[in-house]
Amino acid sequence: MSVAYDLAERIHHIRYDDLTPTVLEWTRAAFVDTIAVTLAGINTDTAQIPLRVAGIAGAAGPCLIFGTDRRTSALDASFINGVASHALDYDDVSGALGGHPSVPLVAPLIALAEQLGTTGREVTLAYVVGFETECRIARGVHFHHYDKGWHPTATLGIFGTVAGAARLLNFTPEQTATAIGLAASFACGLKANFGTMTKPLHVGHCARNGLLAALLVREGFTANPGALEHKQGFLQVFNGPGTYSIERMLDGWGAPFMIEVGEPGLKPYPCCGSTHGAIDRALDLARRHHPTPETITAVEVLAHARRLPHTDNPDPRTPLAAKFSMQYAVTRALVDGAVRLEHFEGTAHLDPHVRAVMPRVTVRAHPEMADDSPHQWGAEVVVTLTSGERLASRIDDYPRRGPGGDPMRREELWAKFEDCAGLALPRAQVAPLFALLEKLDALPNLAEVSRLMECRKRPVAGAAE
Amino acid sequence: MSVAYDLAERIHHIRYDDLTPTVLEWTRAAFVDTIAVTLAGINTDTAQIPLRVAGIAGAAGPCLIFGTDRRTSALDASFINGVASHALDYDDVSGALGGHPSVPLVAPLIALAEQLGTTGREVTLAYVVGFETECRIARGVHFHHYDKGWHPTATLGIFGTVAGAARLLNFTPEQTATAIGLAASFACGLKANFGTMTKPLHVGHCARNGLLAALLVREGFTANPGALEHKQGFLQVFNGPGTYSIERMLDGWGAPFMIEVGEPGLKPYPCCGSTHGAIDRALDLARRHHPTPETITAVEVLAHARRLPHTDNPDPRTPLAAKFSMQYAVTRALVDGAVRLEHFEGTAHLDPHVRAVMPRVTVRAHPEMADDSPHQWGAEVVVTLTSGERLASRIDDYPRRGPGGDPMRREELWAKFEDCAGLALPRAQVAPLFALLEKLDALPNLAEVSRLMECRKRPVAGAAE
Repeated sequence: MSVAYDLAERIHHIRYDDLTPTVLEWTRAAFVDTIAVTLAGINTDTAQIPLRVAGIAGAAGPCLIFGTDRRTSALDASFINGVASHALDYDDVSGALGGHPSVPLVAPLIALAEQLGTTGREVTLAYVVGFETECRIARGVHFHHYDKGWHPTATLGIFGTVAGAARLLNFTPEQTATAIGLAASFACGLKANFGTMTKPLHVGHCARNGLLAALLVREGFTANPGALEHKQGFLQVFNGPGTYSIERMLDGWGAPFMIEVGEPGLKPYPCCGSTHGAIDRALDLARRHHPTPETITAVEVLAHARRLPHTDNPDPRTPLAAKFSMQYAVTRALVDGAVRLEHFEGTAHLDPHVRAVMPRVTVRAHPEMADDSPHQWGAEVVVTLTSGERLASRIDDYPRRGPGGDPMRREELWAKFEDCAGLALPRAQVAPLFALLEKLDALPNLAEVSRLMECRKRPVAGAAE
Repeated sequence: MSVAYDLAERIHHIRYDDLTPTVLEWTRAAFVDTIAVTLAGINTDTAQIPLRVAGIAGAAGPCLIFGTDRRTSALDASFINGVASHALDYDDVSGALGGHPSVPLVAPLIALAEQLGTTGREVTLAYVVGFETECRIARGVHFHHYDKGWHPTATLGIFGTVAGAARLLNFTPEQTATAIGLAASFACGLKANFGTMTKPLHVGHCARNGLLAALLVREGFTANPGALEHKQGFLQVFNGPGTYSIERMLDGWGAPFMIEVGEPGLKPYPCCGSTHGAIDRALDLARRHHPTPETITAVEVLAHARRLPHTDNPDPRTPLAAKFSMQYAVTRALVDGAVRLEHFEGTAHLDPHVRAVMPRVTVRAHPEMADDSPHQWGAEVVVTLTSGERLASRIDDYPRRGPGGDPMRREELWAKFEDCAGLALPRAQVAPLFALLEKLDALPNLAEVSRLMECRKRPVAGAAE
């Protein structure tokens, strides 16, 4: 009937019993991790400024703005929590999506679940279906879509939001196809705004609008279910003739799941995933050689070409811009031996210690990592010392952690969760919340989770940015 | 500094005293006409369904949902009134914009004015600046942007919304440039959804999001003012290399105004403006020859190629789809001698009278109206009768009314206003509202207008669709 209908059939075909242990484990970890970074992001200016606009989160409703005691509509909770979840660029990534797979899903699915009184099992399935949808569509449009300048987390993530919401709302495939057609008209977000608050805004906007598309269709609103393949539809207009494959979007759903093969990873560093390969190598050199700023005469960063258009920023002027500066991130890793939240707060990006080295950093595409090679996340860092010594470290496939890397160990996940959630919640709630999220798919009602994310006394705003 | 900054300087440079009598006359008529069609659209399912979604228009605020007694935030009033204003596709058009210039402006500017207590003079100037902005940007990206499948009313209209809001909010050029950069990430809307409720939804979405962009920037939210010309920005991503001209966007602001030269027109028929040339000619034949359905053996519709991709629909299945069917509109004009609101309500699109003729209608591009010719709005209708007689009527430039046509006479405008506003308001309010809008630029406070658009008792919903 239509591509959206074919997608809808697949979206409604997957059953909870189809989910593998790997998929279930990832999903639990993704909720833990995404809630952690959302709580860390909620008190940043990026998430707080939208709350100052009259009307935003002003409607009554059952859905929590995480880390506060404010409840509102599912739409606006998705918006604010969605912005917060991406505010620090510390949320998970997927190589297949070319972006952040969980942030278009977690905030709107929790909000809708709070409204509907959904079980953890249903939410788990909705998440997996959403992840599958956004990554299968990505398979069909990448990397032309990515390279052109769209922000896939938003422009493709919105279809994940719709798919997940469609499952929670028990849509028919016809309704889901219509909601996908509608969402095609809401898809938006440009890489040109990376390094500003508008990047995380894309995510909240996508979460709210994907949910809005579904809720409108539930009430009988009409859209064209053929809006993906239409001559003036999503594929032709966002990508263009000859740059996409419908077959690759539809083939092989859930066998294996994109959670298993879509190069997902939790982020160990709170900055753009495209810098992670080089950070990984810079940390390796720091660990082995402990170079000091005075001893470094030159730093060469060579990464896959796809990693550079949005990260080759020699002089970032804000903490957010620093998250998209290969020069800053690599220097920080070399001279501090770590890349942490505090390095992207206040005036840390202007630290003279780091700034002294940054002019000596050059960034370029690695000549041995071709466009269509398996080295999408590869990087090499070469440091020349005043002694003339040359230190080099190279990785060809994936960094140890992050995109496509090994799963985080439970202790690492807890450490990140404790750090992040502690920025918004009283200490006493942090461990119980972690424990609850570890058994996500066994929860009888998601409202339990939201009760533990409530915080009556607001911490000082602007603590982390 | 950036293209958005260059636009911002122009946006803030225009003064009320620069406005010519033609510009002022158009602006008054545009408010009368847009408010008329918004009131006619407010009780359609298209505008009512979104009000059923939890959270929409649920926040308290001073801004009226036209034709009701409900007041809410400026954001949500812009959304619902914006959807209503385009619900019937009866609102004004501009050839230069390739779309509908007033609907991205009127609803959000009135909402913001209600919140700020703005004068009619300020609103008039904000409207003119918004019109200029959307049409100047259109000059720079058309007709590649249009032909590709974007819905310019939304994808370019949003910059008009931002420009108008920036004037009402007394922004600095820096703030306006940032808001334009932010809005570039909100721009969306695909022609694939024409003929469904999602087309008018684009407009409400654009109005709300353009206003949101401005209100976020007022609170200090950041975006990239270089997001238009950035290598992964609006011009490269929405259009692509070699398909736009920054010079044409920036040149000659207000000299003359796009209101004077951008082929604006008020719509005499409540359907897609691209059908207006052919309707005009079909009505000419009906007037002169009174053909009956039985006597018509064939109808040939030849129009400029740009008018056809979204209107060549031989079998529209809904009233909204019928608004985008050249076959339906031309047949209706031929056999009824008129094209009115009631022809796009209920099951009128299935009228056997009209359906008997529709299979005999063929639609194609006019071979003598080349792509880049001045015949953008030209059309020819050729009717063959059972007698063998061949009736033909052709227009090469503009239809008598509508895109680029003559201004509507005051009596015509009043007749349309009375028809439309009467669908939502008590008769006693209609003439006083018209009188008030005729002196728009003399009003000390726009709240006067909104008081006269308030209606305590809701008429039966679904009256017009």
